[in-house]
Amino acid sequence: MLFHVEMTVNIPHDIPKEEVERMKVLEREQAHELQRTGQWRHLWRIAGRFANVSIFDVASPQALHDILSNLPLFPFMEIKVMPLCRHPSSIRDDDT
Amino acid sequence: MLFHVEMTVNIPHDIPKEEVERMKVLEREQAHELQRTGQWRHLWRIAGRFANVSIFDVASPQALHDILSNLPLFPFMEIKVMPLCRHPSSIRDDDT
Amino acid sequence: MLFHVEMTVNIPHDIPKEEVERMKVLEREQAHELQRTGQWRHLWRIAGRFANVSIFDVASPQALHDILSNLPLFPFMEIKVMPLCRHPSSIRDDDT
Amino acid sequence: MLFHVEMTVNIPHDIPKEEVERMKVLEREQAHELQRTGQWRHLWRIAGRFANVSIFDVASPQALHDILSNLPLFPFMEIKVMPLCRHPSSIRDDDT
Amino acid sequence: MLFHVEMTVNIPHDIPKEEVERMKVLEREQAHELQRTGQWRHLWRIAGRFANVSIFDVASPQALHDILSNLPLFPFMEIKVMPLCRHPSSIRDDDT
Amino acid sequence: MLFHVEMTVNIPHDIPKEEVERMKVLEREQAHELQRTGQWRHLWRIAGRFANVSIFDVASPQALHDILSNLPLFPFMEIKVMPLCRHPSSIRDDDT
Amino acid sequence: MLFHVEMTVNIPHDIPKEEVERMKVLEREQAHELQRTGQWRHLWRIAGRFANVSIFDVASPQALHDILSNLPLFPFMEIKVMPLCRHPSSIRDDDT
Amino acid sequence: MLFHVEMTVNIPHDIPKEEVERMKVLEREQAHELQRTGQWRHLWRIAGRFANVSIFDVASPQALHDILSNLPLFPFMEIKVMPLCRHPSSIRDDDT
Amino acid sequence: MLFHVEMTVNIPHDIPKEEVERMKVLEREQAHELQRTGQWRHLWRIAGRFANVSIFDVASPQALHDILSNLPLFPFMEIKVMPLCRHPSSIRDDDT
Amino acid sequence: MLFHVEMTVNIPHDIPKEEVERMKVLEREQAHELQRTGQWRHLWRIAGRFANVSIFDVASPQALHDILSNLPLFPFMEIKVMPLCRHPSSIRDDDT
Repeated sequence: MLFHVEMTVNIPHDIPKEEVERMKVLEREQAHELQRTGQWRHLWRIAGRFANVSIFDVASPQALHDILSNLPLFPFMEIKVMPLCRHPSSIRDDDT
Repeated sequence: MLFHVEMTVNIPHDIPKEEVERMKVLEREQAHELQRTGQWRHLWRIAGRFANVSIFDVASPQALHDILSNLPLFPFMEIKVMPLCRHPSSIRDDDT
Repeated sequence: MLFHVEMTVNIPHDIPKEEVERMKVLEREQAHELQRTGQWRHLWRIAGRFANVSIFDVASPQALHDILSNLPLFPFMEIKVMPLCRHPSSIRDDDT
Repeated sequence: MLFHVEMTVNIPHDIPKEEVERMKVLEREQAHELQRTGQWRHLWRIAGRFANVSIFDVASPQALHDILSNLPLFPFMEIKVMPLCRHPSSIRDDDT
Repeated sequence: MLFHVEMTVNIPHDIPKEEVERMKVLEREQAHELQRTGQWRHLWRIAGRFANVSIFDVASPQALHDILSNLPLFPFMEIKVMPLCRHPSSIRDDDT
Repeated sequence: MLFHVEMTVNIPHDIPKEEVERMKVLEREQAHELQRTGQWRHLWRIAGRFANVSIFDVASPQALHDILSNLPLFPFMEIKVMPLCRHPSSIRDDDT
Repeated sequence: MLFHVEMTVNIPHDIPKEEVERMKVLEREQAHELQRTGQWRHLWRIAGRFANVSIFDVASPQALHDILSNLPLFPFMEIKVMPLCRHPSSIRDDDT
Repeated sequence: MLFHVEMTVNIPHDIPKEEVERMKVLEREQAHELQRTGQWRHLWRIAGRFANVSIFDVASPQALHDILSNLPLFPFMEIKVMPLCRHPSSIRDDDT
Repeated sequence: MLFHVEMTVNIPHDIPKEEVERMKVLEREQAHELQRTGQWRHLWRIAGRFANVSIFDVASPQALHDILSNLPLFPFMEIKVMPLCRHPSSIRDDDT
Repeated sequence: MLFHVEMTVNIPHDIPKEEVERMKVLEREQAHELQRTGQWRHLWRIAGRFANVSIFDVASPQALHDILSNLPLFPFMEIKVMPLCRHPSSIRDDDT
């Protein structure tokens, strides 16, 4: 099932740069892997902000939470979740 | 280019039902046509609300405005627009 | 799966009382039926407001939306949805 | 009587990890004990957030405050409380 | 037990004046009676607004809801409820 | 004259505990003294929050400000003030 | 004593123009009279809005409420009140 | 001097279409004239909304208010005003 | 021309007290000087908050910004600015 | 295409002054260069705030994001973006 997730990242300025870089590298690896498995179906940058809009396709809210709460930057993210369903006017096969 | 659009519909209760139905039919036809041309790339219902999340792929903000402002339900919508761009961690070809 | 739903009802004052009563009776019947099937797992009144907090146990966001959007008072409700999952500190069998 | 409580946790990043772990262990123990006594009736994780939704069944607002303000993570929580009562459409014996 | 209630009244301008007056008279009678029984312990006007701050002393959230939802102006009120308890620094006998 | 004051306390976690305790002791002493003089007429804890609702009976806004700004925890409080007056439906002698 | 009052006017469009004009004339007369008595000490238009910022010099919150609630446009105003006092850096005699 | 103005238009649906059209024609004429005199320096549509962002170059807040409050759609606009001044990093002659 | 300015001060608790005192002394001196020149026309404390409401009479938004941004506490202030103009119901000579 | 960008800067007080100055110098250089290329079309200071309103003329949301996210002060900015298009009442050649 589909969930719309908006993540905004706020990293405190007094965290050492190497630590931030290390987290970002891990974050990217996890994002790559989750896109490959199809669970992180879409991922866009919101122009002008350190934030993204994502569509997740997961088996349950539990699966969604496990993914999000294990992201390295999770402690520094504000996250908004909205469950999605098929729109009656949609004609796309893959919007479900 | 891509725009993230969230539309929430509030139709005043004193508009005749036939008029509402007529607008919804037209709205659906336009949504179908715009999906076929590829401009309305994604369209999802937000569960529990008379609202949708959409991704538009258009040539300019002007093209986006022309599409949205010509929707039959435009006068009754609250619309939020966010420009999107490619996320550095995305591996999908079609998230651009 | 579980969803937390908060519904606040605002019925315009110029809808005839009989019509409002008719909708409330239907609303109650649907609530009873959905509680019997187990989909509407919990239902509480928020003290001092024409509003409720509910826990739904449904198969998908689509099932949740179909239930909510078919409630007779849906056009007059503001609805907030949050997907829930098991809390690591919970010891109850039925909070999943 | 029943209270709906939403707790969102924000732990400052410069608190030592061992201290955080120690607080979380204590928090879990208290949550277990309060569930066993029946005062913490329901406890759910909100998917995607370090937050929970809880239903407390306590003798008074004073009892609720004593419980919440003694949680080890209380100083780092934003807490919203809503008193609940029986919904006229509820058919469950235990939603009171 | 004590509840802090803030009520803001918004009466639509197209309700006939006699009807509004009739509701206000009933409202006042109920307020008088509830003050006499001790359930509506304090009642103040907020300067400059058609609103009040009240302290209710009732047996339960259910009792509070029954009182508030039966006020004639309830359909036109925005109501905020906060449960209160004794403050550790209070020295008054009647702030409990 | 009466003022409704809601104080929410947020003490930064890196202030030494002894300093916090010292401030709380002083705060309590001042609260006691101001209750004895009748200026701090009511004082309630808001259940579940490090916050209070208070009713002050003072000679002027200046007197109110002098009291509040001299509280030891004032630098860490968010304070909301509303002037109150007699409600036309009140029957209590001491709600003025 | 001084109160800062911001009034924003929203007149429903279906009130007859003559009725609106009649109210505005009365409103102006009362404003003139209250300025002459010194109770409405300052009155400014907020540029670009049907709103004003005012400073009232009255004997009590009760006096303030009586003035504001008797303004002809009171039912159509959103009003925010803040009690003022002398600023320690002020050197003006008449800012008290 | 320069003012940043954001105008959002909300026309009630029960105003006759001809009346709305009449107002829009007048609005456009005034906008044209004010652009010719240089007072309405910039005018952009916000994509996806019945709203605009404008830069006014006027002699005073009074002049700004006189212009805005005489627009035919003024009664149906929400207007936000921010005074602007030269940015120290600007190199444009006409951003003053 | 007149501007309404609301300044709320939030000084981080880890700035040394002497530094804060030094800034406050400078702030007061500048406030005195600007009141003497007539640019800072009114200055009131908002009761219960470390905040003020001020009326400035300056030649332009640029002049206003130069004054505000040179205040010693400017880095720690949240500032809201509203341009004012004469109210049609004002009878005071000096509210312009 | 045009984007309206509002940037508000909040620099933590514990960043060394030289570091802040260094960032500001770089920020200015980039602003100058981007104005020269025509991509940063307008740049105004919002009076009374450490904030600006800007109009960017760029090829895509991606180009906008690349510019903004490379500004030295980007980590300390809150940024709001709105896509703009031509207003039907505009008569200026350069508002497109």
